[in-house]
Amino acid sequence: MTITIPGTSHPASSRYLPSVERRASLPAGFRAGGLAAGIKASGRPDLALVVTTVGPAAAAAVFTPNAFAAAPVRLSRANLAATSDDARGGFGFASAVVCTSGSANAATGAAGDADQAEVGRLVATAAGVDQTRVLHLSTGVIGTRLPLDRVAAGIASLEPRLRDDDEGLADAAGALRTTDSVTKVATTTVDLPSPDGASATVTVSGIAKGVGMIHPNMATMLSVVLTDAAVAPEVLWGLLRPAAARTWDQLSVDGDTSTNDTVFALASGASGAAPVAAGSEAAGALGAAIEAVARDLARQQAADGEGATTLITTVVRGAGDDAEARAVARAVVSSSLVKAAAHGKDPNWGRVAGAAGNAVLATAAVLEAAGLPPDEAERRAGQPVALDPDRLRIAIAGHRVFDGAAGGPLDFDREAARAAMDGPELVIELDLGLGDGSGEAFGCDLTEAYVIENSEYTT
Amino acid sequence: MTITIPGTSHPASSRYLPSVERRASLPAGFRAGGLAAGIKASGRPDLALVVTTVGPAAAAAVFTPNAFAAAPVRLSRANLAATSDDARGGFGFASAVVCTSGSANAATGAAGDADQAEVGRLVATAAGVDQTRVLHLSTGVIGTRLPLDRVAAGIASLEPRLRDDDEGLADAAGALRTTDSVTKVATTTVDLPSPDGASATVTVSGIAKGVGMIHPNMATMLSVVLTDAAVAPEVLWGLLRPAAARTWDQLSVDGDTSTNDTVFALASGASGAAPVAAGSEAAGALGAAIEAVARDLARQQAADGEGATTLITTVVRGAGDDAEARAVARAVVSSSLVKAAAHGKDPNWGRVAGAAGNAVLATAAVLEAAGLPPDEAERRAGQPVALDPDRLRIAIAGHRVFDGAAGGPLDFDREAARAAMDGPELVIELDLGLGDGSGEAFGCDLTEAYVIENSEYTT
Repeated sequence: MTITIPGTSHPASSRYLPSVERRASLPAGFRAGGLAAGIKASGRPDLALVVTTVGPAAAAAVFTPNAFAAAPVRLSRANLAATSDDARGGFGFASAVVCTSGSANAATGAAGDADQAEVGRLVATAAGVDQTRVLHLSTGVIGTRLPLDRVAAGIASLEPRLRDDDEGLADAAGALRTTDSVTKVATTTVDLPSPDGASATVTVSGIAKGVGMIHPNMATMLSVVLTDAAVAPEVLWGLLRPAAARTWDQLSVDGDTSTNDTVFALASGASGAAPVAAGSEAAGALGAAIEAVARDLARQQAADGEGATTLITTVVRGAGDDAEARAVARAVVSSSLVKAAAHGKDPNWGRVAGAAGNAVLATAAVLEAAGLPPDEAERRAGQPVALDPDRLRIAIAGHRVFDGAAGGPLDFDREAARAAMDGPELVIELDLGLGDGSGEAFGCDLTEAYVIENSEYTT
Repeated sequence: MTITIPGTSHPASSRYLPSVERRASLPAGFRAGGLAAGIKASGRPDLALVVTTVGPAAAAAVFTPNAFAAAPVRLSRANLAATSDDARGGFGFASAVVCTSGSANAATGAAGDADQAEVGRLVATAAGVDQTRVLHLSTGVIGTRLPLDRVAAGIASLEPRLRDDDEGLADAAGALRTTDSVTKVATTTVDLPSPDGASATVTVSGIAKGVGMIHPNMATMLSVVLTDAAVAPEVLWGLLRPAAARTWDQLSVDGDTSTNDTVFALASGASGAAPVAAGSEAAGALGAAIEAVARDLARQQAADGEGATTLITTVVRGAGDDAEARAVARAVVSSSLVKAAAHGKDPNWGRVAGAAGNAVLATAAVLEAAGLPPDEAERRAGQPVALDPDRLRIAIAGHRVFDGAAGGPLDFDREAARAAMDGPELVIELDLGLGDGSGEAFGCDLTEAYVIENSEYTT
């Protein structure tokens, strides 16, 4: 069969991705749920659990590059390494994902590692799976221990009540939240070949939290993407990594990367579709579905940045290559001056050009994840992006404001541009005029509320 | 003779630097001044001029890495290249430095280049020097043309009134200012050998502006360091670059680097001291004097960041090497979360550790300037810094708050720490426990005022 991808989810996208719905849709082969275990003082849901129903699922992960990775990150990495031949802990098999919200179990030393191992033992016992097949997420206050008694009671209470329907996944998504103002979910489907020569509909559904920060602590970006596609762990990892490099690695709320940031993808294989082979057309379609879900979750996270009132999407075209385009897009969306100008509805192209001129390529790990050969990734990491002011063109909220080839600043209707900037999403477009590379990045405006929320003192 | 360096300027410094006074002290061999030429609508001083009195001075420069370098940056680079065999435009000879404040002459295309060349012609005519021996600085609104008629009248009026005393240099410093709340000056002296076998006192005096931003535009960091030492251009450059890498490259107000950032060092040779040879003890002493002035100016700039109420100094010790120490220090001082915590007097070590864990090494150009061999600089640029949470120690405002070897978080008197954070300078110390590398970085707190100043709309 020919696989058809039904449209892009956003006009600014430089890739052809399937459309996404903002709802939770539990793929076949999973049970899920969430409840309030009492980790959070607020009494809100704070324990999420996903368990497979058809044996271990293929699992892939992208973890924070932060050198001070939290206990759940270290344990998850070790568990993935234990269930595969991937010593880095990027992929393996998993039967359950547990998330505690309210205490990050970061910077807690050996005691924190022991606590997290105990969480794994509790989940393994309740779900009847092996401890090494439990993946861990945590978010919340740094430097505090997990309240193990409450977590234990919560797991014992939650596991039997896990649901095999969309509401179960929605409950899990709700329990991930910390200061998130909305529950973040995204779902798409793709028809893949089935062994009988027909096709099977595969669901890809993601839940996420962040990047609002739980006060007085750090942003944490967590996501779990579930699918009922059949795909080997390493192939799944090969789809997740570039998708994350083009989406979550292009997300900046305040430039800080937390000790707990984690994305898991689990594939149950329960859809009835044939196993997805690396490099196949089906792999391309599944990868696009995963990327579409990742992209939409990243956009939801950017829009919900602490204190944010506007989602900023920067689209870069005409770059030397995609890596350079992404670097420029990320530089623009990360600039405090651009973010403040967005808040003030100021079509300030000087700040956009200045930020673009500061762009440097990502780290070797991110470049490699995005598809560059390891030696090229190593060589180009952190290098400045070469730009030509005389070829640059900039549009802000659809208004062309700068054209280097036409002498630079353009006359434009400033009031109309200001009005166009006054909405829930601001699109900043740059054409570098140098090549075929394109990319995008997501951020939010910088507001007084961000500063106030993050400078107030609490114990 | 033995050269003695009389003390450090700050207890947090990891290098032994001469003490600095915050006053302008014009070295022998220069005339200087400033006046209001009418570039700024406010009528404040906006034209500064420095002219040598003993023929061309040795000159060295460090320019913005921004790909959209402004017209004055491009012309200065070309002029330095024309007066030396350094094709990069890093050093050469100069007889004058001119600075216009109020219009940055950035993103103005070929017309802006022609305007800047005309400024050079006007200065050259007034001062009776060659156009290629004029160095250019500019700061202010991006995308507007220089008002050449006013600049011409200003130069004609100012040049004959240049003074060969400290007040002339102070006037020049005042004319650099844009939104700076104070004039930034720093001076030190060093005794160097003289040809007669005795010694001569050499003055090193710097003026600077920034990093307050002129609204609605970008931060610009400008500095001119004058000395009456006798030193060849390439040797001077060899002293200025590492000094800048350890000071100005470690300065972050909001992470944005402008199109106009420039540092010039000019050496007249009029002190009577013997020429300073590369690698000599005298070169070490002169380099320390230049670094001390640069460091103090950078600290003044950080303290005067837009909306800032607190200077943040991060001192990192025990790193694998100095480059890694500087990377960690820069990451901490650049973190929006750390900056907001500083504003809120919150001894939030979790944010400090998290920011440190995100540190990546500087660009190859900066690493090379700081002294790494080119191939090593290329290889290590942008690489993450490897840290060990179990060895990390953190102190905030003198209070020990985290010790990885002791299980992590320490009990400390939170109210006392808050009180200690409530001053004009906050020192954050990290010991990585890995090696002998040390470094520091300078920044400021993030306040509501920053957001308000940079999000308000003006034409």
